[in-house]
Amino acid sequence: MLKGIINYSHYLMQEAVNQGDTIIDATCGNGHDTVFLSKIAGQEGHVFGFDIQDQAIAHTNELLAQNGSTNTTLIKDSHSNLLHHIPVDRLTRLGGAIFNLGFLPGSDKSIITQSETTILAIESMLLHLKQNGIIVLVVYHGHEGGDQEREELMRYVRQLNQYHYQVLFYGFVNQKNDPPFILAITKHE
Amino acid sequence: MLKGIINYSHYLMQEAVNQGDTIIDATCGNGHDTVFLSKIAGQEGHVFGFDIQDQAIAHTNELLAQNGSTNTTLIKDSHSNLLHHIPVDRLTRLGGAIFNLGFLPGSDKSIITQSETTILAIESMLLHLKQNGIIVLVVYHGHEGGDQEREELMRYVRQLNQYHYQVLFYGFVNQKNDPPFILAITKHE
Repeated sequence: MLKGIINYSHYLMQEAVNQGDTIIDATCGNGHDTVFLSKIAGQEGHVFGFDIQDQAIAHTNELLAQNGSTNTTLIKDSHSNLLHHIPVDRLTRLGGAIFNLGFLPGSDKSIITQSETTILAIESMLLHLKQNGIIVLVVYHGHEGGDQEREELMRYVRQLNQYHYQVLFYGFVNQKNDPPFILAITKHE
Repeated sequence: MLKGIINYSHYLMQEAVNQGDTIIDATCGNGHDTVFLSKIAGQEGHVFGFDIQDQAIAHTNELLAQNGSTNTTLIKDSHSNLLHHIPVDRLTRLGGAIFNLGFLPGSDKSIITQSETTILAIESMLLHLKQNGIIVLVVYHGHEGGDQEREELMRYVRQLNQYHYQVLFYGFVNQKNDPPFILAITKHE
């Protein structure tokens, strides 16, 4: 009945993003989101996918090829360096971005996203985000270090000016074992 | 972009409820929800509206008459007594319920909903709720006593068995002055 976390994250992206927009997949991971974003960006749009791990870039590349995606660029670097990789004309059309925070499933659990670089990336994105654009954070926090990242992130989003941004919390509160939740930031008209 | 609280509460009810269902408005208040629920219940369905204040019942009656609603019954009693007022054949078709927790706008601010009676009402509803039915709580908590009600309610919903129920929190976390949020409980298939 109620949309699950992954389903709802895709729903939010789809609602906010228009064909022709630039979209950022800040954490390619297994590549599933990147393929989905490539579809909603359309032929005129473009997806920039970031990951710091070779394995993630390789998997995502493979999945994109299988799906015949031609509007994507993968970058092996931290998402906090996004300004160095995205051409200005694409940046001015930034309609949405998505993060999956935590570690890459099936990989080294010690390599986790860090709130410092996540927040740096969000700040860059907010500057360039179109009106009504969206940044969706899917926060996995059950791993070691996950608590701290979650708390630092919550502190950051709570102080975003409500006259410019809406920050939605969407999560299931009666599930055991630290289920992921969504933080979605939109820019006002 | 992102659905506001009242808008999303109506969206959730509309998604979960089918024509012909029984719906409970646990807190009629100004009657706006009751009129909306009357529409989504359809001619075969029925809405039971509760409020403990004369003013709320009078306003709601008036609004229902203006809208030509014929599928509603208003009851001046606590929603915790709902089992005494709803016929069994209607109770077995319970598709949804909504609460607006806090005080009646424009009325005596000392008359507020209490977590004890709210929880008693929820327990009764959960027993009779159809599979995929929903209970939507719109939690206003900026008034005196609102903190306590919110905390007691959060403690209650967190312990609901995840194998039978989903409990969603939907709220904006960067707004000042204790904005309302939604807790939505659905029963699994």
